[in-house]
Amino acid sequence: MGGDHAPGVVVEGAVRAAAASGGRIHTLLVGDEAAVRAELARLGAEDRPDCAVLHAPEVISMAEAPATAVKQKQRSSIHLGLGAHQRGLADAFISAGNTGAVMAASLFILGRLENVSRPAVLGFFPTTRSYCIALDVGANMDCKPEHLVRFAQMGAVYARTIMRRPEPTVALLNVGEEPGKGSESVKAAYELLESLDGVQFVGNIEGRDVLHHGADVVVCDGFVGNALLKFGESIATALHQMLERAFEGGELPEDQRSALLGAAGSVHKRFDYEEYGGAPLLGVNGNVLIGHGGSSARAIERLVTAAADLVEQNVSGGIAELINR
Amino acid sequence: MGGDHAPGVVVEGAVRAAAASGGRIHTLLVGDEAAVRAELARLGAEDRPDCAVLHAPEVISMAEAPATAVKQKQRSSIHLGLGAHQRGLADAFISAGNTGAVMAASLFILGRLENVSRPAVLGFFPTTRSYCIALDVGANMDCKPEHLVRFAQMGAVYARTIMRRPEPTVALLNVGEEPGKGSESVKAAYELLESLDGVQFVGNIEGRDVLHHGADVVVCDGFVGNALLKFGESIATALHQMLERAFEGGELPEDQRSALLGAAGSVHKRFDYEEYGGAPLLGVNGNVLIGHGGSSARAIERLVTAAADLVEQNVSGGIAELINR
Repeated sequence: MGGDHAPGVVVEGAVRAAAASGGRIHTLLVGDEAAVRAELARLGAEDRPDCAVLHAPEVISMAEAPATAVKQKQRSSIHLGLGAHQRGLADAFISAGNTGAVMAASLFILGRLENVSRPAVLGFFPTTRSYCIALDVGANMDCKPEHLVRFAQMGAVYARTIMRRPEPTVALLNVGEEPGKGSESVKAAYELLESLDGVQFVGNIEGRDVLHHGADVVVCDGFVGNALLKFGESIATALHQMLERAFEGGELPEDQRSALLGAAGSVHKRFDYEEYGGAPLLGVNGNVLIGHGGSSARAIERLVTAAADLVEQNVSGGIAELINR
Repeated sequence: MGGDHAPGVVVEGAVRAAAASGGRIHTLLVGDEAAVRAELARLGAEDRPDCAVLHAPEVISMAEAPATAVKQKQRSSIHLGLGAHQRGLADAFISAGNTGAVMAASLFILGRLENVSRPAVLGFFPTTRSYCIALDVGANMDCKPEHLVRFAQMGAVYARTIMRRPEPTVALLNVGEEPGKGSESVKAAYELLESLDGVQFVGNIEGRDVLHHGADVVVCDGFVGNALLKFGESIATALHQMLERAFEGGELPEDQRSALLGAAGSVHKRFDYEEYGGAPLLGVNGNVLIGHGGSSARAIERLVTAAADLVEQNVSGGIAELINR
């Protein structure tokens, strides 16, 4: 029931992911049963055995205050979905709904991995080489040095398993390359990361290094990570508007103009969140992915497939092992 | 003597700015006299009355630790230039050198405006409408709510005078639009800004709103502002590399390919710092602008002209008046 276009696009994306998976993925659609079944019928998918429905009588809307909603609406689709995951009925939980509510309910229902005090949301950035990840991008505002160290470890495990980089590089986002730069928390984190085993720490990188693939994993607090991620997501639409305006009243023939917009668009699209589906919430005792509120069916499909990868690669288990070894 | 290509590009940019100003701008070139005079001779400008030279026997290099350098090298071009400004021999001071040293020496030699405890560096972002400014973008890492309020006031004065926006909108960069979001410091700043006179506060904006001109003035701490600014500056080169790669081995004829790269480049160039010259340091008792270390002659020329604007519009006086009225 989560996101701006639910349950339509959510059901459609889930059905697509299941259908394309060749039996690898089964989905449990949690929400208002009548509405969900109507969407399944619209798609001709009402009899698919890989698309089950679990009725949830309550919905937490996008605008509700997370803390209150999570306390009061314990029969929401978020609660019942996470409950199904916690009891082993599902291997992962996905939502494009109220991000704060998903995070709060995940902590409450699934709990944290041992020795992880602050789960983190992971974000994706296109780079000149391929893509990189950053964490945290929104769950934690005021981070202590130890939190940043956990983000480094969780990111390294994700990069090894999901991104298949055997020795991922991990960098600290900072205002300069030299040690001793930055906020008090970042300065202290630098020292901790330097002597940390199991993570290939390559030092500080600056904002300009992210798109140029300064590292596979970029470590930052959730405030700056969120600002950078959303800024990056806006580049595609901003550039499109700027290009269109630059061509207005120009001498470029219509066919060349549209060829240009198309070609530039295909590159700018790499900044579009739909390409990445959504963001894993790492550090909880389970597999949780959070989609964009504006997710399309295509974005949901990617999110479902990304969840299957998280489960099969046992990312949570890898994190627990690295942190507690 | 500051920047990666000094004194060559610095002298060239200064001469160009003076020559183009029609008598409005006179420059005082502070540095190693022989080296500066050699550059003037190279440009055929050794006899220009609007390009004077002040000898400085010491140079603070880009890599030096600011605090130590500022204490030990009191006959550096940064010290002597700021000293000339402080004594009224020059109306403004410009450097493309060691940013930390320029900031530290500015505080030491010029002092702060009354009731400004943290001067801020101002940065520029291209927007779909024109451009906006953000502050702080690098001088202050851990900001208290009162510092953010001062940034809002200083930015509003700059926007009114230099950007000629009679009623500039001022927003707080945050992770969500709703009040109550963000770090502890940002939450407290929101409340202070809401009841502040003389500034048109429009609430929170997110990272995605910057390029879409969510406000004329974006308020943030120096850590996140610096990350965003440098990220933005890297978009032009990253996109160029991505576009080139996308065309590699493609079917596009060479002439169309280069037309496309050229047209896209002209838009992407708006993300290039050279377009904006450099960053004013607001809140000190004087007019200081800091250029990029990699500044070209063109960037220096813009910086010199921007300094003349700061002086003529009396930005410092306007800030003092708004804050202490």
